[in-house]
This record gives sequence, C-alpha cells and structure tokens, in this order.
Amino acid sequence: MRPLQLDDDRALPADPATRGIARTLYRETRDLPLVCMHGHVDAAVLAQDIPFPDPASLFVVPDHYLLRMLVSQGAQLPDLGVPSAHGGPVETDPRTIWRRFCAGWHLFRGTPTRYWLEHELHEVFGVTTHPSAETADALYDHLAEQLAKPDFRPRALFERFNIEVLATTDSPLSTLPDHAVLREQGWGEKVVPTFRPDALLYLHRPGWAAGVDELAALSGIDTGSYDGFLAALRARRQVFVEAGAMATDHGHFGTDTTPLAPAEAARVYAAARAGSVDPAEAEAFSGHMLFEMARMSCEDGLVMQLHPGVLRNYDTDGHAQFGPDQGFDIPVAAEFTRGLRPLLEAFGRDPRFRLIVFTVDEMTYSRELAPLAGVYPAMRLGAPWWFLDTPDGMRRFREAITDTAGFYNTSGFVDDTRAFVSIPARHDLARRIDAGFLARLVAEHRLPMDEAVETAVDLAYRLPRESYARREG
Amino acid sequence: MRPLQLDDDRALPADPATRGIARTLYRETRDLPLVCMHGHVDAAVLAQDIPFPDPASLFVVPDHYLLRMLVSQGAQLPDLGVPSAHGGPVETDPRTIWRRFCAGWHLFRGTPTRYWLEHELHEVFGVTTHPSAETADALYDHLAEQLAKPDFRPRALFERFNIEVLATTDSPLSTLPDHAVLREQGWGEKVVPTFRPDALLYLHRPGWAAGVDELAALSGIDTGSYDGFLAALRARRQVFVEAGAMATDHGHFGTDTTPLAPAEAARVYAAARAGSVDPAEAEAFSGHMLFEMARMSCEDGLVMQLHPGVLRNYDTDGHAQFGPDQGFDIPVAAEFTRGLRPLLEAFGRDPRFRLIVFTVDEMTYSRELAPLAGVYPAMRLGAPWWFLDTPDGMRRFREAITDTAGFYNTSGFVDDTRAFVSIPARHDLARRIDAGFLARLVAEHRLPMDEAVETAVDLAYRLPRESYARREG
Amino acid sequence: MRPLQLDDDRALPADPATRGIARTLYRETRDLPLVCMHGHVDAAVLAQDIPFPDPASLFVVPDHYLLRMLVSQGAQLPDLGVPSAHGGPVETDPRTIWRRFCAGWHLFRGTPTRYWLEHELHEVFGVTTHPSAETADALYDHLAEQLAKPDFRPRALFERFNIEVLATTDSPLSTLPDHAVLREQGWGEKVVPTFRPDALLYLHRPGWAAGVDELAALSGIDTGSYDGFLAALRARRQVFVEAGAMATDHGHFGTDTTPLAPAEAARVYAAARAGSVDPAEAEAFSGHMLFEMARMSCEDGLVMQLHPGVLRNYDTDGHAQFGPDQGFDIPVAAEFTRGLRPLLEAFGRDPRFRLIVFTVDEMTYSRELAPLAGVYPAMRLGAPWWFLDTPDGMRRFREAITDTAGFYNTSGFVDDTRAFVSIPARHDLARRIDAGFLARLVAEHRLPMDEAVETAVDLAYRLPRESYARREG
Repeated sequence: MRPLQLDDDRALPADPATRGIARTLYRETRDLPLVCMHGHVDAAVLAQDIPFPDPASLFVVPDHYLLRMLVSQGAQLPDLGVPSAHGGPVETDPRTIWRRFCAGWHLFRGTPTRYWLEHELHEVFGVTTHPSAETADALYDHLAEQLAKPDFRPRALFERFNIEVLATTDSPLSTLPDHAVLREQGWGEKVVPTFRPDALLYLHRPGWAAGVDELAALSGIDTGSYDGFLAALRARRQVFVEAGAMATDHGHFGTDTTPLAPAEAARVYAAARAGSVDPAEAEAFSGHMLFEMARMSCEDGLVMQLHPGVLRNYDTDGHAQFGPDQGFDIPVAAEFTRGLRPLLEAFGRDPRFRLIVFTVDEMTYSRELAPLAGVYPAMRLGAPWWFLDTPDGMRRFREAITDTAGFYNTSGFVDDTRAFVSIPARHDLARRIDAGFLARLVAEHRLPMDEAVETAVDLAYRLPRESYARREG
Repeated sequence: MRPLQLDDDRALPADPATRGIARTLYRETRDLPLVCMHGHVDAAVLAQDIPFPDPASLFVVPDHYLLRMLVSQGAQLPDLGVPSAHGGPVETDPRTIWRRFCAGWHLFRGTPTRYWLEHELHEVFGVTTHPSAETADALYDHLAEQLAKPDFRPRALFERFNIEVLATTDSPLSTLPDHAVLREQGWGEKVVPTFRPDALLYLHRPGWAAGVDELAALSGIDTGSYDGFLAALRARRQVFVEAGAMATDHGHFGTDTTPLAPAEAARVYAAARAGSVDPAEAEAFSGHMLFEMARMSCEDGLVMQLHPGVLRNYDTDGHAQFGPDQGFDIPVAAEFTRGLRPLLEAFGRDPRFRLIVFTVDEMTYSRELAPLAGVYPAMRLGAPWWFLDTPDGMRRFREAITDTAGFYNTSGFVDDTRAFVSIPARHDLARRIDAGFLARLVAEHRLPMDEAVETAVDLAYRLPRESYARREG
Repeated sequence: MRPLQLDDDRALPADPATRGIARTLYRETRDLPLVCMHGHVDAAVLAQDIPFPDPASLFVVPDHYLLRMLVSQGAQLPDLGVPSAHGGPVETDPRTIWRRFCAGWHLFRGTPTRYWLEHELHEVFGVTTHPSAETADALYDHLAEQLAKPDFRPRALFERFNIEVLATTDSPLSTLPDHAVLREQGWGEKVVPTFRPDALLYLHRPGWAAGVDELAALSGIDTGSYDGFLAALRARRQVFVEAGAMATDHGHFGTDTTPLAPAEAARVYAAARAGSVDPAEAEAFSGHMLFEMARMSCEDGLVMQLHPGVLRNYDTDGHAQFGPDQGFDIPVAAEFTRGLRPLLEAFGRDPRFRLIVFTVDEMTYSRELAPLAGVYPAMRLGAPWWFLDTPDGMRRFREAITDTAGFYNTSGFVDDTRAFVSIPARHDLARRIDAGFLARLVAEHRLPMDEAVETAVDLAYRLPRESYARREG
C-alpha cells in the first residue's frame, strides 16, 4: 500500500526561489470562491440533490479522459460500464469496474487526470493510499461509505467547494425545469443556464428538421421561414436571459463567420426545410449563423463563447456503438485570423459585445489569438481547453499569449468540466500554475510582487466574473 | 507612489546557478555598440535633429504596440491622439493623452511594451516611479523638462545609445534627401537607407500606376514595358547602393517565389499598365518579383530581407478611419518550404546572395526555417519579429532553431523598431535573453564557458554586422 | 588545446534540486541494454566486421547532419569527400576532410551533432581535446590508431555498446544475405531486418516498373495484376518475418490512408504497368497501399512504422549532383487527424495491429498525435525524429504529449541513426532527457519517485521492446 499524499507545493515551480514566490501568490488565491462560468454538470444533479450512487458511476463511467486512456491500452468500453448499441454484455457491477480502473492507475502518470483524481480522492474523500489492484476494494468501500453520507450529496459538496456560480450547458429547446426548481429554492444565482444552439444551426445534421419544429412549438413562432427561425431563436435566447443565463456557447467545427445575404440565407434555409440542402451550403449557413448569433448578443447582452476545431465522433463504428463523448473526438489545425474577420469587423469594437474564444490548437496562441484579443475590445481568450487544460498546457498558454494579449484580455479560469467533484481540483491547479507563471515574472524582475498578487486574484476570480457578466446594451 | 527600479538581473533566468552564468555572459555584451540593421526610424529625425515635442508624441501616439493594448481594453484611438478620417473630435492635449496611458499601466503587465518602457523611462529619462493615474502629471513634467534639454535631442541620444549604425526603411521612390544631409555631415556610415519596393511589386494595389510613372521619372527609364520596369528598379537599387544601403526589405503577404516566364511576366505587366490586371495574376507577379529581386541582389550585393505572413489592415473600417500601422495587422499561418523553393534552388547556394527571413509564425521555426537555414549558405534566420520580439519569444526562438540551424545561421539581433528611444531597451533585452539561453547550455554542460562568451558577442554584435554586409559580387 | 570533458550531469536540468532527482533516475537506466528498433546501419558492416577505414569516412562523409551544417556555412560537398555526378574534383584525402570538419567545430555549438560527437570522441575513442584547426592532425592520428585496433571493429563496438538488438532498414527486394550470415553466426536475434517497401508503392517513381518485375522474380508470383502485386508483397513480408523482422517502415510524403475500391486500385495499377499512370492517381494509390500494409500487418504481425512529412531531395540540382540523404530534405506541415482516419477506423482497435507514428512537425504533438495515440490501442507515438531528436526537442515532446497520451502510448526511445558509433550517445542523451522530464514531475510533486524510476526504465528499455514485439495474430 503506497501512501497518497498531496504536497502543499504540488504543481509549483521546482526552482526554490521561484517556488517561494509562487507559494505566496497561490496563498492569496487558494481560498477565493470558485467561479464556474462554463461546464457540463447536469442541473438536475443539483436540483434533485440525489446522492451519487457509487464510485464507478461517479469517477469512471462518465469521464471521457479516463475512459480513453484505458481504451488506448486495450480496455473495452463495455467492460468499463459503457454499453454498446450493437448489444453484447456490459459490466454492471460497479466494484468490478472500479477494480479495472485501479489496476490501470500507472497509465495516468504525468496526466492531468491523475492530478485531478489525486486531489478528489484525497481532499474530497480523505483517501490516503494510491489506487492499485491491491487497494481497489478497500478504496471502493471507503468511497461508497462516504458517498452515502449527507455531506457528500451534490449541494453539500457545492457549498463545501465554495462555488459561487456554476453555469450549465443547455439545449436551446430546454424549458430549463431544473433551473426553475433551483431558482425557487434560492439557488437561481448559483446555477445558471447557457444557451447552446449548435444542433439548430447545422441544417444537414440528423434531427435538425424535428428541432426547428420543436423550436416553433416552444416559442410559438412559425419557423417555416428563415425570418421566423431567427425570431424564434431570439425568443429562446430571451427565455434563457430571464432564467439567468449569461452566455451562449458554440461548438462549431470551423471558425468561418462570413454572413450570407439575407435572401441567400433564406434560400438555403428553405432548401433545408424542404429536405434538400447542399452540405456545403449548410456549412456556409452555420458560419453565417455565428455572425447572426453575434448580432443577437449585441441585442441581448449574452456573452458569446466559441469552441472550434474538434472533429467529433471520429471513429464511425465507435460512435455508432457507444455514442458521443467517449474519447473519440480529435482536434484539427485551427484558423482564426481569416475565419473570425467578418464577425470581428462587424462587432469586435461594439461595446455591447463580448466574444470568448477557446482552442485546442495551441499553435494559434501567439500567431492569431493573442494578436486578435490584443486589439479587439470585444474579444477575450478563454482558458486552455480540454486537451490543454493541464499543468504544462496552462503554463504554455500564459507564455505564448501574455506578450501580446497581456492578462486582461483573457477570461480567467474556466473549468469546462462534466465531472462535478473535479471542479475544485481544476480551479486549484489553475491557481497554482498561474501563480508559478507570475512567480517567474517576479523572479526575473519583470513584475513587482504587489502587481503579481493583484493579477493572480484577477485571474482566479475577478476576470471570470467580469468576462462573463452579461453586457448591458 | 510606487518606486520604479530596474534590477541588474532582470530578464535573466531565475535559477541561481544559471543566473550567475548568464550575468557573466551578459556583462560581456552589455556595452557593445548597437548594430541596428533594420528599423523604421525616420531619417529626418536625425538629419534635422529636432527635439522630441512632448511625452505623448514620443511614447504614446506613434507606438502601435501600446495603442492596440489600450484599444483592446476599450480606449478610442482619437482619445489617444489618433485622428479619424471620418472626422470627429481628436485629443490634442498631450498631457491628457499621457494621463490616459498612465491610467492603463497595469494592462501592460507581462508584456514587452512594459519591459521596454520601464527601461526607457528609468535608464534614458531617469524616472523613478511607476506610471499611474496619480503620478501621470509629475511624470509628464519630468519628461517634458528632460526632452527640452540638448542631451535629449536625437543625435545626442544616438551617441549616448552607442549606436554604431542605423538602417532606415525607405520608399524605392525616395531621393533620400535626409540621408544626403547626414552623409554631408559625416553621418553617412551611421545612418543608411534600405530599399523597400513592395508598393511597386503589387500590380493591383491603389497607387501602383502612379508609382511606376514616378519610377520612370526618377530613373529616366521608360517603365511602359516590363523590361523597362526591371531596368528602372535596377537603377533605383543602384542609387540606394551609392547612398550606403546594405539591404532590401520585402513585406510580402505570402512566400511564393515562383518565377514567371519572361513573356508571361511581360503580359501581366502590360495588363496592369492597361489597368486590367487579374488579382490572381498580380499576386503571382509579386512572387515572381521576389525571384527577380533575388537575382538583382546577386548582381548588386544588397542583402535581401523577407518579412511575410501578416494580414495587414485587418479591420477595414479601422483602416479607413485611422490608416495603417495602428495595431490592426494580424498574422496568419506561414509556409516557407514550398514557397521559397524556387528562389533557394536558383540562388540559395550562390555566394553572391544573402537572404534573411523573418516570421511571426513561430510554428515554422523547427519545422521549416531552421532546416532551410541549416543547409542553404545564402539563408539566415532573422531575429524574432514583431509579436515575437519578447523575452519568452526570443527564448523559444533559440530553443527551437539552434538544434538544426546553430547560432551562425542566424542574423543576430535586429530591433525593427519605429520607436527611436526604445532601441537600447530592445538590444539590452535581447542580450539578456541570449545570455540566459547560453547560460542554460553552460549549466547543462552542453557548451563550455569560453565558447558561450564568444557566441554571446557574436549574436549581439558580429553576426548582425556580418549578416548585413553588402555582398561583393 | 582546449580540454574535452564530459560532465556526469550533462543534459540534466540546471536547477540543483531537480538535477539531483534526475541524476538518481538516470543512474537507474544508464547501464540498461540498448534496444535499437529502427535505424539505417548497413547489416554488411556487422556481417563482415570490417574495420572502419579512417576518421573522415566514419564521422564526416556519411553524416548528413554534419554535412548540411558545413554546407550552410559555405563548404562545398566535394571538398568534404562527396563526389558530384556532374564531375569535377573531389577530396579523397581523409585527413584533409577531417581538418575541414575540425576547423568548423564552433558551428556546431548548441546542436545535437556536437553533443553526440563529444560523446563519441570522448567515451568511445578516448579523445580529450576539442577539435579545432590546431588539434585536427593529432586527433586524426589518435582516431586512426584506435580504429586499427580489434576493439574498434564493428562487432566489438556492438558488444561494448551493450546493444541488445539492432534493426536495419531494408529494400523489400533484398534477399537479406548479410542477415543470413549474421544468423548463421548466432547474431540472428541481435541484428534484424525491417521491411521498407516505399519504392514499390509509388507507381510513378523512376524504377517502379523494374522493381515490380524484380518483385515477381524474387517471389515467383506474377505481378502483372494488382492481385499478384499484393500476393507478392505478402510473400516478401513473409520472407522478412522468417528472417526475424519485427516491423515495416513507411516514409510516405503524406499521411493519406484512404483505401481505393479493389477494382479502382486494380485499374490504377494496370495503368502504371502500362506506363501511363496519372500522378494524382499514383499518389492516391500510395495512400491506399498504406491501408493495405496495415491490413497485412494484422495478418503477419509486423509492427507498422510511419514517417511522413518530409519533402525529400528539395534542391533539384543538389540532388542531381550529390544524390539523396545529403541534407537537402525539408519538412512541411503535417496533418494526421484526417489522414490516418481510414486506417485507424479500420484497424486502430484491432488487437493484431500496432502502428508507430513519427513526425518532424512538432506542432501536431498536442493537437493530433497525442489525442490519437491516447485513444487508439493500436497506435503509439514514436520518439522525436530527425530534426527533433535533440535535447530540447525530446523535452518538448514529453511536455506536449504526456498530458494526453501518457508515457505508455509512446514507443520509448528510437535512435534512427545511420552513424553506428553514435548509437550509445543518442540513447544516453534520451535517457538523460527523460530523466530530467520525470525529475521535474517529481520535483513538482506530480509523480512519486518510485513510479518515476519504473517509468524511466520503461521508456529506456521495456517500451521499445514491447512496442516492437511482433504481434501474435
């Protein structure tokens, strides 16, 4: 049994002089509330406050980072509790799934998954030994016992985690019933929805026609015409605004934002309604709709988030069997300079507009994103996202973008997590990495300590609040 | 009032052992003369030696790094003294502009602008407090008082800065009157012109036709035909050679260098003269002209500089209002391997030719630029440029290119500045960063100290001189 | 005369605390056997065990890293012993060639060539002074004297280097006579062939038709049809399997792996046999053949290696004069996500398949390669290759890929060398760099020391063995 300990100085720079400075900076941010302006926690978890069922369901089955690593070393998803649509056996015993995960613990060496899990196990659940084949059962029993306690129900953890606000990500067709429950119970400022309309903006995706029918039904606006479609989207956005939403989110594949002439947009929309849209035209329409979403953000003040550049559901058979979000999403090279130009030329200097851009292609940091965010007042750089939300990824982000964008054209930390209990680990790690980066500037006499302290607090707390504040028109 | 101090060890590595070595290396280069082979200082400033008018006109209004950061946080260019062509009020009180800049001082944390300005304020002007809303007026008064002194006139600063040679960047249509004045006064070897013919090589740009007419008038060579155009360019280059020029400079958007057949070039040229050139053909012609410029460099020995990959005047409305060089230039992904191939195959092993290549896409460092410079004797890598001329940018440059290009296929430091009083800051910073990089090699026992010293001196002084020496045919 | 010494801590991190950890980790791997699963040593050298003739022939003439650096600074290849096909004088005196190399020693500062050569000269040959114009003759005499000794013959060095296994790279048309000799002499498990069929898979390359004729003759299978071509390739692969091969190697320019319909493949093949293949179709066929090679690897268990992204023989005239592998190969931007998709969808989760992917475009590390290797069980990331097989290149590799791929989706170290006596230097350097990376994780409390030790051993020894183990169907 190998002891699991968390060193107070973990993830701070190794050089003793720099570490000392980083430690001081980190202490200034360690206990600040968590501002979680983007993520994928299900609002129902908090609305219903039901205990998490077991360690496998909490830590293993829903975590695509974790599943993909085990799969890369030969595990089968059904053996980890993920059923195949093709049928066949699926493991249903959570203890067996947990054992399989523990036996692969060494595979996570050096990864953020390992770092987050150590934090969760030790800090949240009081685990003091490393997972392994030998310790799996004892850990399972310990975790199951904890999960049964009232202190480990979602709302109790929310309070313990010191979360100030948590944004969920929601279908534009959602009536947001869980948010309504939360609001009635005084949690309306703590849990807010986010408007994510991707499915309605890609005309050639399966289900689009049914979606716009539902959009019409929900909004009471006829979506038979392009103008009706826009009006219905506006109406849905307004419902989200009234439910406390601060932002929209757009997971487009590309970054094209070229507007179509209204007549052309109407023609393509009509073709899609008639079931005969050309895929290239549908793609162009999706870029056009980003432009329209920016226009609507100027009207209703919702902050616009863009997360491009991921080829989703890369493995056709894997997707058919196991569905989305199982680890088979792969980035491609991104381009922002040309793609965002129409949108930025139209709205980038509009004081009613805020755009936060994320990337999984770090090659665009110094070349495109920092130069753009470093001149357009509407634009901020989101935190390193997904594959880059890591100790070294976050460090490289600051190293590559600060020269040209500074600190104040970034959004501050955004955790973007599906795993509720990993939220404190992710914020804590980001605060440590930013402390380390700032400490190097101090150690190299490039920034005085008092300004470093102020900046650390801004990155951890003030900037996410300010970046995601709904714009007043 | 927060004291502004410059630590002797600023921008050196934080690790104490490495820092000690870096300090020794830096001391060997600190007092070497400044060799400024590429920049945008106006020769008239030195020819006329007129005092700088006021702090805002010196530090704020002409500095696109500084303007873009303030704009990114909501400032309006007219409030910073930049008039709009659309009319409207523009701030004309330099003290007010200076106050606005000082109030935004925190925005520059971690940026090279901050680093350079601290150096300028403290080392050149003796400022001992940080800019802020509170200190703005006192700083303004101090700076204005200094600027009125003879010691702060351009030539006095030139001498104080220990500048050995300064290259300006000039229109191919310039008669170089300021350089003539300087030469008559014994400053001919100190200030030299550079031939930058971009405007004449893009057939479809506004003003091209007028330019070639003026080219004809200046050179006395009929530019009605393509052959005449080439002959007139040769003649202008010769005028620059005789005025002491060492180099040409080419700010093309792409890197294509594919030559056209002479008849095809002549056809496209004739179409442009007739006012009906196809934009794609004009683009191809501009690549062809890079090839021709290389050929002419073999003849007259002018070093050829290439600065590609920037989408200039990105914001159409911003450009219409405020003109070029106000911060709205954004890089795109660059490609050198295929683009430079025709030019390198033809001239890359020609001992009469020297090509210095710059990039704002650091992704090409290890992949393309170092492999090319590491085999073609004509080619050298220019110093990190523009958005990359920063402490971390310069460090990443050495880390990415030294493996394959070594030190001796680089140009040494090139400051590329418009801001005359920032020149010593930029050179000093480059010497510190190179000292830090070399110190790491020494600390890791990858380079003996005596060789590191020699290399540091070469990078700071000998290589820029040698790289930009006009080639003798 | 400047003393040449190798510090015990060379290439370890400079920070004393991290260095101490790295030293401990390095000591655990320093004496492990060398596993050399990919390289370009000629089997004849070991089969015949003939002494290396002289220092120039050993160190200078065959080393493209070294030649390209000297050429980049003005050397002519014929003066370094490389004859031109255009005729003209070529230096044949090895001492003169050696002197020219020694005089350029300073050019290699900071490069891996310098690092490897220092190791070779000092550790293998006992040299104690730096090369220079002054020491060239004495070094030459010393080296020549050593090379004449039995201890410096290839097999003696092989044993001294503690090489456990060395894979060569071989034509698919080779009858592997040297490997047969080695096998008869008990060296069959020490030196194994690798099947590299590129020349047969590019239908439009010169010599292709003669190659497939020879393929038919060797295999006894009619290659007049596409089916016969596939059958003959299968037969040749089987010969390699029986000769101990563990892997194939594919140096394609692109990464496309799109399969053609069999009838379409047969049509293109027939056109090529008829001497009238379309270049674009031939290119598509080469991508199709990567897919077929993967299919065959599932059948016969050979590990598939892919090395894309290099524009070979970049300088047409240089290639015509001096042939391939003289330093005129230049990388281009690589793309893996889309290119490998067909192959990975078909075989990426097949337990019979192993794919090891290398790149010279490090921009794909975090964006494409780590996400792919971090989910597909068949795929592993090869070690940093060619221009990236350097101290900083290897460090950046681990920093960029470990977050998403971990350690166990990498191949461990692969030296890929043509220079037999550089093999220990390369492995030693890789072990130092990996020790340094792991030491940082330990120093930052991101990995316990016992796991770091195990990982270091895995990277140096166990993973290359395991990654290249022929798959049992």
